[in-house]
Amino acid sequence: MPLNFADRLNNVETSAIRELFKLLGKPGIISFAGGFPDSAMFDVDGIRIAANAALTNEPGAALQYGATEGYGPLREQIASFMRNKGAQDLTPEQLIVTTGSQQALDLLGKTMISPGDKVIVEGPTFLATIQCFRLYGAELISAPVDGEGVKTDELERLIEEHRPKFVYLIPTFGNPSGALLNEERRRAVLAMAVKHQTLVVEDDPYGDLYFGETPPPLSLLALSAQVPGSRELLVHCGSLSKVLSPGLRVGWMVGPAELLGKATMCKQFSDAHTSTFAQATAAQYLLAGRMPGTLAKVRKVYAERAAAMGDALRRELGDGIEFVQPQGGLFIWARLTGANGKLADGAELAKRAIENNVAFVPGAPFYASNPDVATLRLSFATVGIDKIEEGIARLAASL
Amino acid sequence: MPLNFADRLNNVETSAIRELFKLLGKPGIISFAGGFPDSAMFDVDGIRIAANAALTNEPGAALQYGATEGYGPLREQIASFMRNKGAQDLTPEQLIVTTGSQQALDLLGKTMISPGDKVIVEGPTFLATIQCFRLYGAELISAPVDGEGVKTDELERLIEEHRPKFVYLIPTFGNPSGALLNEERRRAVLAMAVKHQTLVVEDDPYGDLYFGETPPPLSLLALSAQVPGSRELLVHCGSLSKVLSPGLRVGWMVGPAELLGKATMCKQFSDAHTSTFAQATAAQYLLAGRMPGTLAKVRKVYAERAAAMGDALRRELGDGIEFVQPQGGLFIWARLTGANGKLADGAELAKRAIENNVAFVPGAPFYASNPDVATLRLSFATVGIDKIEEGIARLAASL
Repeated sequence: MPLNFADRLNNVETSAIRELFKLLGKPGIISFAGGFPDSAMFDVDGIRIAANAALTNEPGAALQYGATEGYGPLREQIASFMRNKGAQDLTPEQLIVTTGSQQALDLLGKTMISPGDKVIVEGPTFLATIQCFRLYGAELISAPVDGEGVKTDELERLIEEHRPKFVYLIPTFGNPSGALLNEERRRAVLAMAVKHQTLVVEDDPYGDLYFGETPPPLSLLALSAQVPGSRELLVHCGSLSKVLSPGLRVGWMVGPAELLGKATMCKQFSDAHTSTFAQATAAQYLLAGRMPGTLAKVRKVYAERAAAMGDALRRELGDGIEFVQPQGGLFIWARLTGANGKLADGAELAKRAIENNVAFVPGAPFYASNPDVATLRLSFATVGIDKIEEGIARLAASL
Repeated sequence: MPLNFADRLNNVETSAIRELFKLLGKPGIISFAGGFPDSAMFDVDGIRIAANAALTNEPGAALQYGATEGYGPLREQIASFMRNKGAQDLTPEQLIVTTGSQQALDLLGKTMISPGDKVIVEGPTFLATIQCFRLYGAELISAPVDGEGVKTDELERLIEEHRPKFVYLIPTFGNPSGALLNEERRRAVLAMAVKHQTLVVEDDPYGDLYFGETPPPLSLLALSAQVPGSRELLVHCGSLSKVLSPGLRVGWMVGPAELLGKATMCKQFSDAHTSTFAQATAAQYLLAGRMPGTLAKVRKVYAERAAAMGDALRRELGDGIEFVQPQGGLFIWARLTGANGKLADGAELAKRAIENNVAFVPGAPFYASNPDVATLRLSFATVGIDKIEEGIARLAASL
């Protein structure tokens, strides 16, 4: 029997990137295509100690059904973690635990989006956000970004024109742009949320991965304390995936109480609750105070790799490529210039690169509309410096 | 700002049961209200050994992002577990891992249900199924059950009348009915799936919890090998929640390849994948061969408690109540008869019972339509035999 699937599936395409990923198993390939942290950096000992503590101290809670809102001690630890990053007054009740921050996006879609509703995203933005919101019937509008994040004047014009259900931004080292929204623009975003009474979603999985000594500007969540009325129009999504372990699937969502209540109701019927085993392990890990050390270690390694990749790109590809050197995160977002008749098509370069045993993701699929086909996303996170240099040399040969 | 939520939220009510559950913290209360296994039965040592093995043998896989379809070694273990229960030819590729079987229901809704589609469920059925499918806009039709499960003649009539998107059944020790669908009816369900080309969903979280020596009749999945054409019209949802630990959030879904492919695509945007840490732990647990011993232990304890509760109900409530003694699972589903002018309203009895420090769930909310207000669900799983007898005596006093 040909099965008769739900209409909403017509809103998504199977990703062109999936085809690319099938080729990544090729022996000898150097891959800059991933969107994940380096497994070699995982604090396995710390997680083992935390898991054992969870099973010793609270086996019932760690293995039984739990509250849909999240495991109490983890909510406390996350609130404390966020307060240390400037969200000064955050209480555990103001956040719910989600199964990775991907589920926070899904719950936002389920809670907020009726078919035909408009949502403004960055162009480019996280691929799984595009597909997630489209499954709920959203019409996505792209707001342009530059090296300092979303262009707020253009964003305000789009808000006025489209009256969106919400605006979704990854302000800090965004995927794929790597861009850091500057502080002036952060204030402008919060001000326009209040002025236009528009909900803003801040997705922030990368904010802890800054290079150098100085943290990035305050998150929209932390900054909202300085912009009266903005906090009630702000959702903030966080995650342990990029800084500790994606495999725990522990994320969280801060938001207005009414929205969190609806999202909790939806989550009850999505997966009942996030694994209490993973939550209790994460709570013990944070409680043990290992996170600052872990973060310092990964920041250092990613900073070195980002610098090496930037240097190699400038050296090997010269005027054939342009990019803003990232100040954090996992990605360099670059654009082929086509200078001197060089190739300016990211998808074509990706094909040639695979033949030369190096992989990256072409940029076009990251746009909800009007793709810039000359763009590419390169992850430096999972490759050692020697291999980065070798891989970029292969990329230059492919260009 | 009053937030403008998605229209789909209008399809669900906040549960009356939630109000009841708030009262369960009352000191001294004996609760038969839960729908969960007994924490005291968890094989904490076995899970600890499994988690440590996962982190020792495969730390990268256990902590990194994983395939949306599920962690390979766990899919193999689950397929093997299912083959041992009669699904003889099941391969790992024919199932995906879900974040508890609640997520399997959510993915079915997302993949299959367009607003206005009809779905046939049992009356009564699992409360979270009703809400989950309604969030996707399903119109639910209730098929009546008796002590031997869904009445298949009535079910066929409803299929012919409503042409549903699918039929959802909990054939083995269902929640809340506790009923066991007999073998003749199982064959009838598979035959009508083929005859009417109707998809059937078998939710089976309780099938391993049989009392006595003899397992229940083969699952619809296992039996489908004997009914040509039925396998391609069958989805089977399984779970470790009731037999090992709900906190792992490990469930699975077997189904036609095309449906699994669409469900996997939807899952990618729901939570990316189920916790690899929990999956690797579950895989190591199953690999270690501890499951048969764990199952034997919980079967014995739940069987004793079910017998004690049945005896106490007959002794204490006499002709005021009627029920079929369950042969497995976690629940006794009972009906107040109103004999000799006794109370015949489950919700009213629940209120009086709380005053007498005993709790259960009234049955009406378990019906998608035409509730029988005289029904109640009593869980015997988490209460020792002394407390069962005391609690039922209090219930009799409330009646």
